[in-house]
Amino acid sequence: MAKINIGIIGLGTVGTGVVKLLAPDPQFKVKWVAVRDTTKERDVDLSNIRVTNNPFDMVNDPEVEIVVEVAGGTDPFYELTKHAIEQGKHIVTANKELISKHGTEIFELAKKHNVTVMFEAAVGGGIPLISTLQRGLQANTFSSIAGILNGTTNFILTQMEEKGQSFQDALADAQALGYAEADPTNDVKGFDVAYKINILSSLAFGRFVDPLAVYRQGITGITDTDIKTAKEFGFRIKMIGLARRNGNQLDIRAHPMLVPLHHLLASVEGANNAIFISGSAVGDVMLVGQGAGQMPTASAVVGDIINIASALKLPDFAPYFQPAVASQNLQLGSIEDSEAAFYIRLETQDTPGVIGNLGHALGAHSVSLHSLVQRGIKEDGSATIIFLTHKASERSVSRALKEIEAQATTRQIGIALRVFE
Amino acid sequence: MAKINIGIIGLGTVGTGVVKLLAPDPQFKVKWVAVRDTTKERDVDLSNIRVTNNPFDMVNDPEVEIVVEVAGGTDPFYELTKHAIEQGKHIVTANKELISKHGTEIFELAKKHNVTVMFEAAVGGGIPLISTLQRGLQANTFSSIAGILNGTTNFILTQMEEKGQSFQDALADAQALGYAEADPTNDVKGFDVAYKINILSSLAFGRFVDPLAVYRQGITGITDTDIKTAKEFGFRIKMIGLARRNGNQLDIRAHPMLVPLHHLLASVEGANNAIFISGSAVGDVMLVGQGAGQMPTASAVVGDIINIASALKLPDFAPYFQPAVASQNLQLGSIEDSEAAFYIRLETQDTPGVIGNLGHALGAHSVSLHSLVQRGIKEDGSATIIFLTHKASERSVSRALKEIEAQATTRQIGIALRVFE
Repeated sequence: MAKINIGIIGLGTVGTGVVKLLAPDPQFKVKWVAVRDTTKERDVDLSNIRVTNNPFDMVNDPEVEIVVEVAGGTDPFYELTKHAIEQGKHIVTANKELISKHGTEIFELAKKHNVTVMFEAAVGGGIPLISTLQRGLQANTFSSIAGILNGTTNFILTQMEEKGQSFQDALADAQALGYAEADPTNDVKGFDVAYKINILSSLAFGRFVDPLAVYRQGITGITDTDIKTAKEFGFRIKMIGLARRNGNQLDIRAHPMLVPLHHLLASVEGANNAIFISGSAVGDVMLVGQGAGQMPTASAVVGDIINIASALKLPDFAPYFQPAVASQNLQLGSIEDSEAAFYIRLETQDTPGVIGNLGHALGAHSVSLHSLVQRGIKEDGSATIIFLTHKASERSVSRALKEIEAQATTRQIGIALRVFE
Repeated sequence: MAKINIGIIGLGTVGTGVVKLLAPDPQFKVKWVAVRDTTKERDVDLSNIRVTNNPFDMVNDPEVEIVVEVAGGTDPFYELTKHAIEQGKHIVTANKELISKHGTEIFELAKKHNVTVMFEAAVGGGIPLISTLQRGLQANTFSSIAGILNGTTNFILTQMEEKGQSFQDALADAQALGYAEADPTNDVKGFDVAYKINILSSLAFGRFVDPLAVYRQGITGITDTDIKTAKEFGFRIKMIGLARRNGNQLDIRAHPMLVPLHHLLASVEGANNAIFISGSAVGDVMLVGQGAGQMPTASAVVGDIINIASALKLPDFAPYFQPAVASQNLQLGSIEDSEAAFYIRLETQDTPGVIGNLGHALGAHSVSLHSLVQRGIKEDGSATIIFLTHKASERSVSRALKEIEAQATTRQIGIALRVFE
């Protein structure tokens, strides 16, 4: 049997895992790896593999049939991926930023050149989210997709709950354990989730949006008081990627939410990922597993490679794997048009009338109160007031909050979080 | 576009759902339905569909390309399915009994005639379990599959826990709500789970066994005392289908187990189903959703139909969907050879020495005790003793139980349940 030649770009954790998983499979030969530093010691046997620091070398090799991209970032991978497709290579990528930003263009180019671009590893590590949305649930139209798509933030929030840690301490622990990077911005500010939910949304609803236009809120402002108070109210705080379709508008967000304790998503702990899919026929389906890590992510990459290998044995198989993600006349809606119940934490003066002022401001914008607690008055005479609203439009809530912020009795608005439903 | 002609056998809840889901899809025409009673009123428009009480009519129609079987039982569907395959029809079936008992033969026949047999609906309703095992996780070898595969028993056990109901009362509620059949044997005695876990095992390990040889224990002997005591010990009782490979032996069972409260499977409530897959690369993945019901099951059936429709557009696509389930030299092991920790409930005389006798019998067979509680002494002088053992072989535990049963102080052994790990 002629082996299928593979070129791998990137030999970090995931790339090393891919080389290890492919090694015993007689179908495949890893012919090339492209790395930044060709002199670095690697934790894998490269004796029969050509090592280059110029990925274009492998892309221009006519024997290479599948290019695997497990590096990250869009530069130079955007140009490189397009060039590889133009050379007739099939692509397997874990690059969420690339697919989220340039998916439409890349898939169209692949269609034109009759090749396949697969990206199971770009979202949810080894959990087969992409294949489930693309092929497991075709009989459904989707109403919403909600996911815990970032293991780092889920780990941090779980630690804050279980150990009563502050955000900073939990982040430091996550960094020490290798769950968070030295610069955690991508994770804790929600960029990673925005990329991923945009990819899932494109599969569910047939249209990518600009991921940088997706509404984001990070988890940096969440305190242990928020975690405790949310639990008293019957919720657990989770970083959520959410995509819904309203008419021809897509409502896509990446922000922490209060998830009811009885909801399946609330039980997803530690570095796990989960996706909760609501389909017209199937109802609610949830998939849970490790969303990152060497072998789980390599499992997704190699699964894609095996699917393409099946494709290569048959004529005209590529269309089966080509996602239809530019078919819908849809646009990203404004967060202002959406509705949610809100959890709000305020720092106020402990003077009479504070709660009256608050109620007045909310009432003036038709936001009604669900629950309210006032916590420990401090030495400086300030108090923390936390309340939960009934469902209201983002527009009304943000106007009410502006008014509350301007009141003399308000020191500052600590945080505003949405409730999941 | 020429429509693909479909024949449906069975027009109960699921068949009706399939007709409804297919109606708006321009790819398909439901040409035939086969039903037992052609005069019965149906909850769906059949005006352009031929209705027959002889399913061979549709199977012999050369225009029919896909035969959908959503009736149940093996008679006459075993002969009918083979005949349809020999006529070159693709098969989509929800019939777990048929696939579990005759899968190997049916898949081989399908290979010979270059057609596809799909059965996503046979296990887990609309949850894409089959496609996940077949195509989403190909890069893995599997170490174990554990599932809550029967919504009826999960509903009953959830009711017993939440409402403190007896088994009989919870069963009556399940029957009133349509979750359990008038004759609940298939569900509560574990036959349904045995069929389903055998199908999942065949996909994970490449070999069907005789489902009637799979070890079964039903849930009929579980009392509210067991549910409460298990919870005190830190567990929830769930009906579990379990499949593991040990060398060339398959360890497959269908029985209730004590699942640790922190395990994801413990959080699956009501009529939901879930499957927990442990793969060599991906680690643990869990899928959860509605395991039965009209539209979820129809979602799985129609998903399979859409996959076959893709196949029909391409030459030689059928092999891609043909499961490889006869490839492994494996046989069903004996339950005696397996190991578990046990939960045991005894009815005893409340006389001194009872616990000493118990400890003696366990010790004689090297079964060591983890926890023990004694519950309310009754008027007749009997007492309930419940204990949890450390992990031990089935053989040792059953010998110890035989010895305990023979002791004068023992009235009866109430139940023995295995602990999930």
